[in-house]
Amino acid sequence: MTLALGIDPGLATTGYGIVRLEPNGELAAIKFGVILTPKADSIPARLDSLYRELKSLLKKHKPDTCGVEKLFFQRNVSTAIAVGQARGVALLALEQAGIPVFEYTPNEVKQAVAGYGSADKKQVQEMVRALLNLTSLPKPDDAADALAIAITHLNTKRYS
Amino acid sequence: MTLALGIDPGLATTGYGIVRLEPNGELAAIKFGVILTPKADSIPARLDSLYRELKSLLKKHKPDTCGVEKLFFQRNVSTAIAVGQARGVALLALEQAGIPVFEYTPNEVKQAVAGYGSADKKQVQEMVRALLNLTSLPKPDDAADALAIAITHLNTKRYS
Repeated sequence: MTLALGIDPGLATTGYGIVRLEPNGELAAIKFGVILTPKADSIPARLDSLYRELKSLLKKHKPDTCGVEKLFFQRNVSTAIAVGQARGVALLALEQAGIPVFEYTPNEVKQAVAGYGSADKKQVQEMVRALLNLTSLPKPDDAADALAIAITHLNTKRYS
Repeated sequence: MTLALGIDPGLATTGYGIVRLEPNGELAAIKFGVILTPKADSIPARLDSLYRELKSLLKKHKPDTCGVEKLFFQRNVSTAIAVGQARGVALLALEQAGIPVFEYTPNEVKQAVAGYGSADKKQVQEMVRALLNLTSLPKPDDAADALAIAITHLNTKRYS
């Protein structure tokens, strides 16, 4: 009954997905969504808002373990810094909650969820839907990405 | 008697410098140094260690305001993400302490401290030494950089 959090951190939008591995080996989506921070606020205030929302999510759902996307490249360096800042705050909140964090590359996620590393976004989302027995594709995209990371983490580590 | 913190965040080494603007307009170094995080630890644990050290520094010295280097570019994107993560944690700690944060480009720092934007590191350090009436160059480099940012901030904002 391992409870895994997948997270896709960003300053404006952080996707999250909590997936439970059931005793029979099936996966169940417990909660997924996005944490948004107001563009009108200062960056430090937005980081604090992300931190508080994440702490509250961790306190409520108490995931056992967490997967996060490994960042290899970004469109440009200022994007990388902005994402890095949000990611740092997320890793801090996870560390403070005692939750171990594992990283997966986008290819590892595609491979684990769709069976091949060159799967497109839609194919990954369709597999996430099927694996979690959802009636429609998980939305928004950042939440679907986070669910895919949680599934990857559970399947890769072979939790029970 | 404004107390300004300058900070140069990084995962392995975060430089800090606290400078007081005296009633007579002179500047005094109150404390400067570096926060180091153990390379053997996980990244989330290192971010947590940085966060706790910074919180403790802010609690002890209670700076009124803070300057931080504006990041334009880094050697490469993975460095940018690593620095971004540390920077995010630093901005979070500052926000939680209610300390406003202002950003300065490296050129603005050189211009403010040494009088011209193309000054080299040694010239900036010598000016920092002179402006703060230190008997020797402030060490290590990351602490000297942080003091330069604090001076820039105090001079730019014309605190009293």
